[in-house]
Amino acid sequence: MARRITEAGHEVVGADSSADAVERARAAGITATGSLADLVAALAPPRAVWVMVPPPLTGGVLDELAGLLEEDDLVVDGGNSDWREAAGRAERLAAAGIRFLDVGVSGGQWGWRHGYGLTVGGAAEDAERIEPVLTALAAPGAVAVVGPTGSGHFVKAVHNAVEYGLMQAYAEGFALLSARDGLDPLTALRVWQAGCSARSFLLEQTVDALAADPALSGVGTAVADSGMGRWTAEEAVRQGIATPVLTAALQARFTSRDDDRAANRLLVAARAQIGGHAHA
Amino acid sequence: MARRITEAGHEVVGADSSADAVERARAAGITATGSLADLVAALAPPRAVWVMVPPPLTGGVLDELAGLLEEDDLVVDGGNSDWREAAGRAERLAAAGIRFLDVGVSGGQWGWRHGYGLTVGGAAEDAERIEPVLTALAAPGAVAVVGPTGSGHFVKAVHNAVEYGLMQAYAEGFALLSARDGLDPLTALRVWQAGCSARSFLLEQTVDALAADPALSGVGTAVADSGMGRWTAEEAVRQGIATPVLTAALQARFTSRDDDRAANRLLVAARAQIGGHAHA
Repeated sequence: MARRITEAGHEVVGADSSADAVERARAAGITATGSLADLVAALAPPRAVWVMVPPPLTGGVLDELAGLLEEDDLVVDGGNSDWREAAGRAERLAAAGIRFLDVGVSGGQWGWRHGYGLTVGGAAEDAERIEPVLTALAAPGAVAVVGPTGSGHFVKAVHNAVEYGLMQAYAEGFALLSARDGLDPLTALRVWQAGCSARSFLLEQTVDALAADPALSGVGTAVADSGMGRWTAEEAVRQGIATPVLTAALQARFTSRDDDRAANRLLVAARAQIGGHAHA
Repeated sequence: MARRITEAGHEVVGADSSADAVERARAAGITATGSLADLVAALAPPRAVWVMVPPPLTGGVLDELAGLLEEDDLVVDGGNSDWREAAGRAERLAAAGIRFLDVGVSGGQWGWRHGYGLTVGGAAEDAERIEPVLTALAAPGAVAVVGPTGSGHFVKAVHNAVEYGLMQAYAEGFALLSARDGLDPLTALRVWQAGCSARSFLLEQTVDALAADPALSGVGTAVADSGMGRWTAEEAVRQGIATPVLTAALQARFTSRDDDRAANRLLVAARAQIGGHAHA
């Protein structure tokens, strides 16, 4: 991301607690420091600081920044944070006169090349201040203020929950194709991606992964999930909004990692108790 | 489709029982007849006849063709036929020495412009005979023989079942976005389509539909389904393959059309009987 901003002609100063990361940034021609204090000292006010760290670390980084920054500085949380944290964080920073934006960032490992999708939550005038940077990061047309504080991360969480649903739909289709004699699933999926309605960025990635190892012999079966699908599921439950597909996709990931299979073992035992295979 | 084939330099003769359709084809410069007998008479052997009619009519058309065509003629079923019919149809035509291919065609109303996705089931040498026509119809790279007889329609059925899952995932994401104060779902979905991982052909269509009527005030709530999602669900059950997302998406369409709501009415009654709102 620093590379895209730099290439657009802006000056970036990075900070990372990892000496390796600092070294890599410097090798790429980006000024980098090892601490937030050094970062803040290196920037002229009014500063704009983009925080992009794993969710469990974000709160600590924002607290540290609150003690280092000055009135009218702006903090952007571009990490995969829980949107329900955004309002409290914005409030704590606002107590020191510091502005806050939450930005959902999508694009994965290809974003640096094609541009990211950015959903911004917060005040339009704060987004306006960093508009050139947002535009440098985004794919054409892929940035917008979507609503008040928290909205940027909320839209990103829902996006990722939807992504689970999309990926699960393709995976189930693949399972059906794989079960048919004489049919090569990779050939079929390539036609889908080349000219069928189901074509998408995610299908392209799926086809590339399958082409690299058509028997999928080199991969496991435990499908990880980031927190975002869970937060979205919690919100659907809290609001009573029906999300059968998003929920099934998330649950399928849980099932994929359920090595203990307690429920299944109880079902096997209960079936035997009832008298079994014949009717239950 | 006739237009794409004609524009690629091939001669097409069409047949349709509707005088209007025949008239439209002729207006577009395509030779057209009103009956299958006239069509067969207009073609020189060995003929290739592409059948594209609604599934309930396909069997009758193929039977009629079996009585009109000669040995080494080729029949292509490009309709949304049940793949489980293909083997029997191929056999009945083979009894008269007539060859058969089943082709799944995807692309909707935009296919004529960008090219279709074509999954071909049957013998490679039969597909080879009509290769120039397949190539003229297909988007670049979007045609392949995917397996033996029936495979073309099978891949298309699974494709459509997957499509239900993809569309339902987007729709559920939209419902969550719509429930949040101050958030404009259309703005968010536009960012997804412009630069986020969830971008796809179907999201593009979804965004266009929403942009045309952001309040969706002009549309109903009953979501239709063609037969293909059901056939796929039957196959998943027959083979015992878990398809939670594809099944949930299909069931969500059934629920959308369940005006009687018998199950819900029984639940309301049973809850009252139990003593109700407090705990059940």
